Amino acid sequence: MIADLRSLAAHVSDGASDRSTHGEDLTYHPARPPDAVVYPESVAEVSGVLAFANERGIPVVPFGAGTSLEGHVIPVAGGISLDLGRLTRVEVHAADLAATAGAGVTRGALNRRASEHGLFFPVDPGADATLGGMAATNASGTTTIRFGGMRAHVLALEVVLADGTVIRPGSRAFKTSAGYNLAALFVGSEGTLGVITELVLRLHGIPEYTVAARATFPDLDAAVSAAVAMVGSGVAITRVELLDALTLHALNRYKEAAYPEAPSLFLEFAGTETGVTGEVEAARELCLAENAGSFDAERNEEARNRLWEARHHAAFALAAAAPSGSKFKATDVCVPVSELPGAVRHARGLVEARGIEASIIGHVGDGNYHVGFSVDPEDPEAIAAAEEVNHELVAYALARGGTCTGEHGIGLGKIGYLEAEHGDLIPVLRGIKHLLDPNGILNPGKILRSG
Amino acid sequence: MIADLRSLAAHVSDGASDRSTHGEDLTYHPARPPDAVVYPESVAEVSGVLAFANERGIPVVPFGAGTSLEGHVIPVAGGISLDLGRLTRVEVHAADLAATAGAGVTRGALNRRASEHGLFFPVDPGADATLGGMAATNASGTTTIRFGGMRAHVLALEVVLADGTVIRPGSRAFKTSAGYNLAALFVGSEGTLGVITELVLRLHGIPEYTVAARATFPDLDAAVSAAVAMVGSGVAITRVELLDALTLHALNRYKEAAYPEAPSLFLEFAGTETGVTGEVEAARELCLAENAGSFDAERNEEARNRLWEARHHAAFALAAAAPSGSKFKATDVCVPVSELPGAVRHARGLVEARGIEASIIGHVGDGNYHVGFSVDPEDPEAIAAAEEVNHELVAYALARGGTCTGEHGIGLGKIGYLEAEHGDLIPVLRGIKHLLDPNGILNPGKILRSG
Repeated sequence: MIADLRSLAAHVSDGASDRSTHGEDLTYHPARPPDAVVYPESVAEVSGVLAFANERGIPVVPFGAGTSLEGHVIPVAGGISLDLGRLTRVEVHAADLAATAGAGVTRGALNRRASEHGLFFPVDPGADATLGGMAATNASGTTTIRFGGMRAHVLALEVVLADGTVIRPGSRAFKTSAGYNLAALFVGSEGTLGVITELVLRLHGIPEYTVAARATFPDLDAAVSAAVAMVGSGVAITRVELLDALTLHALNRYKEAAYPEAPSLFLEFAGTETGVTGEVEAARELCLAENAGSFDAERNEEARNRLWEARHHAAFALAAAAPSGSKFKATDVCVPVSELPGAVRHARGLVEARGIEASIIGHVGDGNYHVGFSVDPEDPEAIAAAEEVNHELVAYALARGGTCTGEHGIGLGKIGYLEAEHGDLIPVLRGIKHLLDPNGILNPGKILRSG
Repeated sequence: MIADLRSLAAHVSDGASDRSTHGEDLTYHPARPPDAVVYPESVAEVSGVLAFANERGIPVVPFGAGTSLEGHVIPVAGGISLDLGRLTRVEVHAADLAATAGAGVTRGALNRRASEHGLFFPVDPGADATLGGMAATNASGTTTIRFGGMRAHVLALEVVLADGTVIRPGSRAFKTSAGYNLAALFVGSEGTLGVITELVLRLHGIPEYTVAARATFPDLDAAVSAAVAMVGSGVAITRVELLDALTLHALNRYKEAAYPEAPSLFLEFAGTETGVTGEVEAARELCLAENAGSFDAERNEEARNRLWEARHHAAFALAAAAPSGSKFKATDVCVPVSELPGAVRHARGLVEARGIEASIIGHVGDGNYHVGFSVDPEDPEAIAAAEEVNHELVAYALARGGTCTGEHGIGLGKIGYLEAEHGDLIPVLRGIKHLLDPNGILNPGKILRSG
């Protein structure tokens, strides 16, 4: 196979190091190296490799930055890891508030280029993921409440189908109703329907004035009620994140910090100076109406970063402090916003009952929250406890109209939960998979069971 | 057939009047009455009728308010018109900023119910369409720049497939990455993949303070540049609409009004009082920087309505003044925003060269614009001229990275343009159609050619 691949792409490796780094992710899903890693430098190389693999029935697993959290990039059936990291072309269409970017461009790299034109790309899942990977998993994150996630930003895609055919769904225009929305179908398809090689993405003007704020509350219900009141009142909020008291307690211990150990909202507002000043005032009033104990707002960049530090560290602080060799586990359910206070209390109870030290952070405007903790992948009991927590969280969310994944996707880890949530849809999903990938070579064993 | 249908649904008609009103729309596409009209009162009736029709190969055309502009509801192959107007259940989930609505609920009816809870549904295509129809055509309209169109608001759907199976893609949660995004695939599928019977829609809080504004400019380029600058600067604008000088001239003549006959932007801002005041000031500065001759802002509701009257009347004023029996024609291309000034000048030249009195209105923040005029459906030359204008507009847009339809959809009228725009996608679109509607009973002859 390697000789064939070398005739199709300039950069091919079956070295142990390349195979090993493309056989695992941040999670405790067991590693499984691919047989070969291909680093295509053009859509033509991607097309050639796929046509070859499709004919031979060889699995192909697209790989971006490797930051996915549900085992998406692990080649469970072996085959080829297709590392798109060399597709790094960026063209900013400043007058159109858009950019064309290769699948291997990271969101950080796009933002550096966009900022030269006073523009930015808002989707922020935390990790500096590649844009192709972010589209493949329908990433979103902290700014979704204001700007929407990947689906709201993908104007058009270049996609290579399983047989090597290149298609370009979508349009460079901001809106289109021309035929079935294939672009939205590929966004979130986790590499199982085609390989995204290029994206046309919507950008936004960098606001002239930004304020960060943090409010503490007597209890979770009050914090969530304030957030929902803000969203419901039409206050133009850019980010609204919840951290619970125990997460801040743990942060204080690990980071030697002194955050108030109370349920807290981390907020961001952006726009014109007068506009933002008005919005912050409205938000402060809504927080005080929910008995907020403090409401601190910061205008200059350094102070803003300091104020938001706890939020930025929450996800990884505990994991970083864990013994080396530990793997990170992040749950990802999303519920209708009115269910969030109960859901977060339930989650805290679950981890406490098992003696797990976990952070709980919520994209509270969206009803999406993560329980994050570290797990020793060699300890079957620890893995069983982690799975149990995940299972209980999903069951709680599904019973209340929620979903098993708000933004991380199904991958390897949530196939059973997808079946529980959408058993009625599975035949249609399988039909679409078979239509676009009849030989089942594209990231097999993800989203749907193989075979 | 009628006897069978009567056993499947309580309200069935083959009367001439029912058939006639379900055989045409607002456009000059030739009328063709269905053989029968069914008014289902439940999803069970929809399911029964579809299972019956699927077995017999009888075409089924979903019908909402009949306000579509590309012939979607015309039963070109006869069969059953499925009028969903009796599916009018509404349940507002106020604490979740969402509502469940039957497909036959109009956006006006939803807004009346939502307003009881201080909430509103922003998607505004002009007509008081049904929500099922708006989802089926992926409607958007004047508020898209701030809130997005139907796809951004459909959280979940109830859909009856061709064989009568009922599925529920999506989630009541604000975000989900659970499996392929079927909800987004049905939105914009124009009744060709399934029949939408119920929707879970996102709502927003009614802003406490709204300002309408109108700015006039020395030329089109200046007006569009000001609009793009506003969007690019992150000014939180709710609506930004362009009317060209000749449209205002015609309105003055028909409505005996006295609008300044210059390229004009109609603007709306909403949020908190301080916030909006700041945004309006920023917008005024951006307009003056583009040499705006006037910038009038109004705060109270009556004055706001007066100020926006021209925009509300633009689409239909000329059509209303046309001889009775005339049909309305609205083109619908969408281009990258930087292309808009040239596109609008090109459109004005096209209609002037043919002596057609037309309005040109643009959802300028989105790059979407409509040329609206009336056509005598009995006059083949007038129809040929209208088609020629449409053809030239689409060719212009496609040559500049635009799309043949920003929000009206493909329907009957744009199948050839879809093929021109996305020839590479047609095999995939056909595959999806065949997967979900193997007998081709669902709205045949729309989006894709029959057979």
